[in-house]
Amino acid sequence: MTEQHPRGVYSAALTPVTTEGTPDATLFVTHCQRLLAEGCDGIAMLGTTGEANSFANDERRALLEAVVAAGIAPDRLLPGTGVAALSETVALTRHALSLGVTTVVMLPPFYYKGVTEDGLFAAYAEVVQRLADPRLRIVLYHIPQMSAVPIPFPVIARLRAAYPGTFSGIKDSAGDLAHMEALVEACPGLAVLAGADPLMLPLLRKGGAGCITATSNLVAADLAFVFRHFSDLNRAAEVEAAQARIVAMRNRASRFAQMASLKALLADRTGEEGWHRLRPPLLPLSEAERGALLVE
Amino acid sequence: MTEQHPRGVYSAALTPVTTEGTPDATLFVTHCQRLLAEGCDGIAMLGTTGEANSFANDERRALLEAVVAAGIAPDRLLPGTGVAALSETVALTRHALSLGVTTVVMLPPFYYKGVTEDGLFAAYAEVVQRLADPRLRIVLYHIPQMSAVPIPFPVIARLRAAYPGTFSGIKDSAGDLAHMEALVEACPGLAVLAGADPLMLPLLRKGGAGCITATSNLVAADLAFVFRHFSDLNRAAEVEAAQARIVAMRNRASRFAQMASLKALLADRTGEEGWHRLRPPLLPLSEAERGALLVE
Repeated sequence: MTEQHPRGVYSAALTPVTTEGTPDATLFVTHCQRLLAEGCDGIAMLGTTGEANSFANDERRALLEAVVAAGIAPDRLLPGTGVAALSETVALTRHALSLGVTTVVMLPPFYYKGVTEDGLFAAYAEVVQRLADPRLRIVLYHIPQMSAVPIPFPVIARLRAAYPGTFSGIKDSAGDLAHMEALVEACPGLAVLAGADPLMLPLLRKGGAGCITATSNLVAADLAFVFRHFSDLNRAAEVEAAQARIVAMRNRASRFAQMASLKALLADRTGEEGWHRLRPPLLPLSEAERGALLVE
Repeated sequence: MTEQHPRGVYSAALTPVTTEGTPDATLFVTHCQRLLAEGCDGIAMLGTTGEANSFANDERRALLEAVVAAGIAPDRLLPGTGVAALSETVALTRHALSLGVTTVVMLPPFYYKGVTEDGLFAAYAEVVQRLADPRLRIVLYHIPQMSAVPIPFPVIARLRAAYPGTFSGIKDSAGDLAHMEALVEACPGLAVLAGADPLMLPLLRKGGAGCITATSNLVAADLAFVFRHFSDLNRAAEVEAAQARIVAMRNRASRFAQMASLKALLADRTGEEGWHRLRPPLLPLSEAERGALLVE
């Protein structure tokens, strides 16, 4: 079996926001260091949970530069670089490569809906061709409930055949374990990463590669424990207990708007102000929601 | 009744593409001048039909600058400036204002789905507040089948109340005449523009302000005629004939992928090479489709 890349627990890190409404790079670096210390294998920054598509490309670049400048190893970073415009996806990915960050998570171009498989293939293929960098590794980002542009199996197969080694993984955030398992079956060697925290454990048991998830902002240590010991029969009870905490936190953060809930919980835990803010169109929880969430 | 702004026939202009895959500014200027000569009141450039969201913000800015530099009056331009990231919507709109282009067509932030009305209101409100330019006029862009983010009536009402005069119009591309008529009813003074060519005539009869449409790339003169004479009983037969040609062309361009079909028809009519290309994820028609379209 080909070695999966990436493999492990990657946090879809939340992005703190300053009083000016811009990404708070200082606090973000602190958070990334904390997540790594808690056991994450890396940081999948600037994804859906990170509100990436609410930030300008300049803001995204500055945040990635800050993290690298702070000394976090580039090979532990999986930034999102897929945007609606092909030429900007190329520019963001080239920027990441220029910093030594060689694995990126790439949404399909997500403005046009109902695009053909040929069109979707062409978009990803043109990005790879324009970049022409053999270091590049792409994690496809399947999140149809948000992008409204699913990535069908035949497109994945064509991309992997056309650019061997480049399309090394997929983050499957559709929330359907059967779909993730089918990907593992259909695409030998493809690193299939669960996009929902509770599904990492069952997916690992079927040959999955780990997770890129949101609740990891709060339960990184438990996820890391499950990842490292899921096949260790002597620690089955501990794995079970960690998994139960993961599920409980995921449920807790899903009662109200997810990103706002995660930020409220993190603000409460750390006392860090920057977690109270989101950029529109996302908004913080109402006071009533926040109160209900925090008394749980 | 408040004067509607904008009012008239605005072409959702197609964007020609060079062999390098970038917007062809020279050919685009030629096309804009042709559309105005055919009777369009203005050019709604860089919209869905113009593949705007497939182009980088730098490419969008350069195209707008080329059109203004070519001498097309800024008050005849309605560029699209709404993108997924609030700060980029601000930057694109500020750039338009810097060129004297004061009316823009603005998509809602379209990455996050299922956003609250408060969140949608906050996004538009923050754009207006950050720009703080009394010249700004915004045409809201309702195209839920593509953006997957509808703009509900209460949000429109709140924005108009909070920023009187700023939210002057709406391009309704949902294709439902009843929805457009309801907007006319519910929002006195709001310029409601049909997003589908065949619906301009019935909408004008109910108090609508005109259209921003795709087929106008091919039937601008007929649309202009209908707009100028729809209430002139002496020219009812000519209006009817023009409307029939509009409907026929719209149907012809809807058999295969719409933008690719419009480009194929325009390439065929003008002999201009740049219309043969689209940027992925959109693709040109296949040879078979093109053949079938052009023999009609």
